[in-house]
Amino acid sequence: MTDYPTAQAIVELRQSTAVEVLEKCLARIREREPIVGAWEYLSPHALQQAQRCDVAQAQGKLLGAFHGVPVGIKDTFATVDMPTGWGTPIHKGRQFGYDAAVVERLKAAGAVIVGKTVTTEYAIARPNKTRNPHNPKHTPGASSSGSAAAVADGMIPIAIGTQMVGSILRPAAYCGIFGFKPSFGVISRYGLMPSSRELDHVGIFARSIADIGLVLSVLAGTDARDPDCYATLIAPPPQKNHPKLALVLGSQWFQIETEAKQALFNSVTTLVAAGATVSQVDLPSEFDAYLDHVEVLCAAGIAANHSADYELHAQEMSPKLQQLIVRGRNINAIAYAKARHAVVDYNITLAKILSEFDAILTPVTTGTAPYGLENTGSFVFCALWTLCGLPAISIPVGVSNGLPLGIQLVGKRLRDRELLEIAQILYSRA
Amino acid sequence: MTDYPTAQAIVELRQSTAVEVLEKCLARIREREPIVGAWEYLSPHALQQAQRCDVAQAQGKLLGAFHGVPVGIKDTFATVDMPTGWGTPIHKGRQFGYDAAVVERLKAAGAVIVGKTVTTEYAIARPNKTRNPHNPKHTPGASSSGSAAAVADGMIPIAIGTQMVGSILRPAAYCGIFGFKPSFGVISRYGLMPSSRELDHVGIFARSIADIGLVLSVLAGTDARDPDCYATLIAPPPQKNHPKLALVLGSQWFQIETEAKQALFNSVTTLVAAGATVSQVDLPSEFDAYLDHVEVLCAAGIAANHSADYELHAQEMSPKLQQLIVRGRNINAIAYAKARHAVVDYNITLAKILSEFDAILTPVTTGTAPYGLENTGSFVFCALWTLCGLPAISIPVGVSNGLPLGIQLVGKRLRDRELLEIAQILYSRA
Repeated sequence: MTDYPTAQAIVELRQSTAVEVLEKCLARIREREPIVGAWEYLSPHALQQAQRCDVAQAQGKLLGAFHGVPVGIKDTFATVDMPTGWGTPIHKGRQFGYDAAVVERLKAAGAVIVGKTVTTEYAIARPNKTRNPHNPKHTPGASSSGSAAAVADGMIPIAIGTQMVGSILRPAAYCGIFGFKPSFGVISRYGLMPSSRELDHVGIFARSIADIGLVLSVLAGTDARDPDCYATLIAPPPQKNHPKLALVLGSQWFQIETEAKQALFNSVTTLVAAGATVSQVDLPSEFDAYLDHVEVLCAAGIAANHSADYELHAQEMSPKLQQLIVRGRNINAIAYAKARHAVVDYNITLAKILSEFDAILTPVTTGTAPYGLENTGSFVFCALWTLCGLPAISIPVGVSNGLPLGIQLVGKRLRDRELLEIAQILYSRA
Repeated sequence: MTDYPTAQAIVELRQSTAVEVLEKCLARIREREPIVGAWEYLSPHALQQAQRCDVAQAQGKLLGAFHGVPVGIKDTFATVDMPTGWGTPIHKGRQFGYDAAVVERLKAAGAVIVGKTVTTEYAIARPNKTRNPHNPKHTPGASSSGSAAAVADGMIPIAIGTQMVGSILRPAAYCGIFGFKPSFGVISRYGLMPSSRELDHVGIFARSIADIGLVLSVLAGTDARDPDCYATLIAPPPQKNHPKLALVLGSQWFQIETEAKQALFNSVTTLVAAGATVSQVDLPSEFDAYLDHVEVLCAAGIAANHSADYELHAQEMSPKLQQLIVRGRNINAIAYAKARHAVVDYNITLAKILSEFDAILTPVTTGTAPYGLENTGSFVFCALWTLCGLPAISIPVGVSNGLPLGIQLVGKRLRDRELLEIAQILYSRA
């Protein structure tokens, strides 16, 4: 789409100054933002951050692993020097007095924070202004709409988003880039708008697998400020040249559209040619209930976290959000506890089933990005892996009628680096 | 009460064979069980396990850190070679096909499993036959009634129990022994009857602090079969000869009775004389709600885990248990999620408040063991620390009218060994 460099190239090749890199990004934003609508807020401090990189470099120092890399941050993360609006008029212009953990880490690693990217309402409901860069008549997907579109359009090499159900991988697939959701508990959610304690994951958009790995290195780490962020990634074993993949179609397979089905089956051919073995695996019937459990945790979480807003500002909420909160307020604690238990049971069963495989190959979306901006597409193919807290990556594999298609690789818990290596091996050969 | 040795003495001094140690225990049980009623089931395999220890020792080998130590197991833990009845006629005689994680670990360390100790109904409701060894007209406390009474009566040196609210520390205090509940997530609950995922803790009864430390070493360790058992204990810093204690009376202080108040205040004098500094600390008003949060998690957990039994066997449940399940079935997911969040908020506040202290000194019970077996006493002084998952030890400090009294020391999260060291230092000098 453009020839802008990856984060890896910015960091390793250093062919331009940080200010030049930033100015290239800003030029692209000026040109394309009226069509794409990826940004909620552009930072007035970005130039200064880039200059600081260049001053340091002139003195022979690099600020960190992300020295001079421009990054966009979904507008659900607190930022000390920019407003944080959560995609709703209710919080528009709200100032937090601190940076979210991921923003802290990116800044400490030398990143240049370009601005806040558009999210849907409370990262769950009414879409905002963002359009698909491949065809502005289509949705970019949701809820990390602006992050996906900005990276896909060449405005920035890296953006940070979140996935409660499918909000990283789906927009990544619709926009034709890589989207990665790590294992649950690996990246701190401190300073992130809370939606569901069990489902909320921080995730990454990039245009190469190497860039995903680079960002993961910067962001992964335990954090006592997020009570669930205690997990440590497991170092990958020696490279496997012939990874074994389990093809999982799942109980929602009937929802897949022709072009997505074709993309998945083409991928099987490509992956086998690249050295993988692929075997179809059926999940037992207990997995048929996964969407119910996700719905319970999602609605209960949204209701628990945003009921106070609902009581004061219901009229400023979309009907969809209001319905979700009303639904959440009526969920029973037993259903909630059982959904939490299902995560445990599913992971035990999955670990057994997948003990003979290296990763899962499965659809990421039902098809290409839907027409219009109202329908942001379906999360059914992402929901199970989010519920189970497994690492998942969306890989762009083709285009149909000008709109991108992806496939999804899912890894084992905390074996995120192994998943990225497998993806790298397969797609460097593909 | 008897001159039976501690676990430490059994392991280190080895003045008797394992069979001799076991026979001494069994003699005491034969003598006192008709009065105390601590046992649900005596293992037909104990003698064989003791003989195996002696055979190994004759060959110059010890089976592990617990070689030949007789241990009692609360009847809520699965045992492969004994029935597991959960204190209810509904499950009486039930056979599990495996050992709970703690039983596995004890056996692997060379312990001799003497039998299953009496629990109240589902470890929460109707008391069973156990009596206080100090005065059989009084309750031993609950729910780990048999474990506490068996250790207090000299039948065994070590027993394993559980604490959802106050079920280790309260019976330990009533029976005049040490009771220890570790940090949440340190000892696996695999194979334990589930009550509340957030509140269930495995705990330890012993007659010395050294024994508590020994058992903790055997039992602590992450276990993927318990989804919350991922925590690792933090090594203690160099010994502090002058620990700083925060005296916390708490919002339920009004419930304390004269003799327990006197025991606590006497302890302040004793501890200061032993080298501690003690300062009173008030908890902020947000902590006033802790009993509400505990009640929500407890009732919702019991309902989620035992509703199926309720639907089939309500008539075999006590009125108290039925009410608890009915209550739990009516709890809203938001209240449940908020109680889980309260744990996080409380721990953040407590960590700040207690950053200048080494441990908390606080009451453990409202008074001595109540008269009769129906009322098993109050858990109000244990509930906050269980909710927050902090390590806590009940220390016997005296007797009033023939009934023991204890005080409670609470440590920082995962600093269980530091807490035990502080307790050891103070009470070796006291």
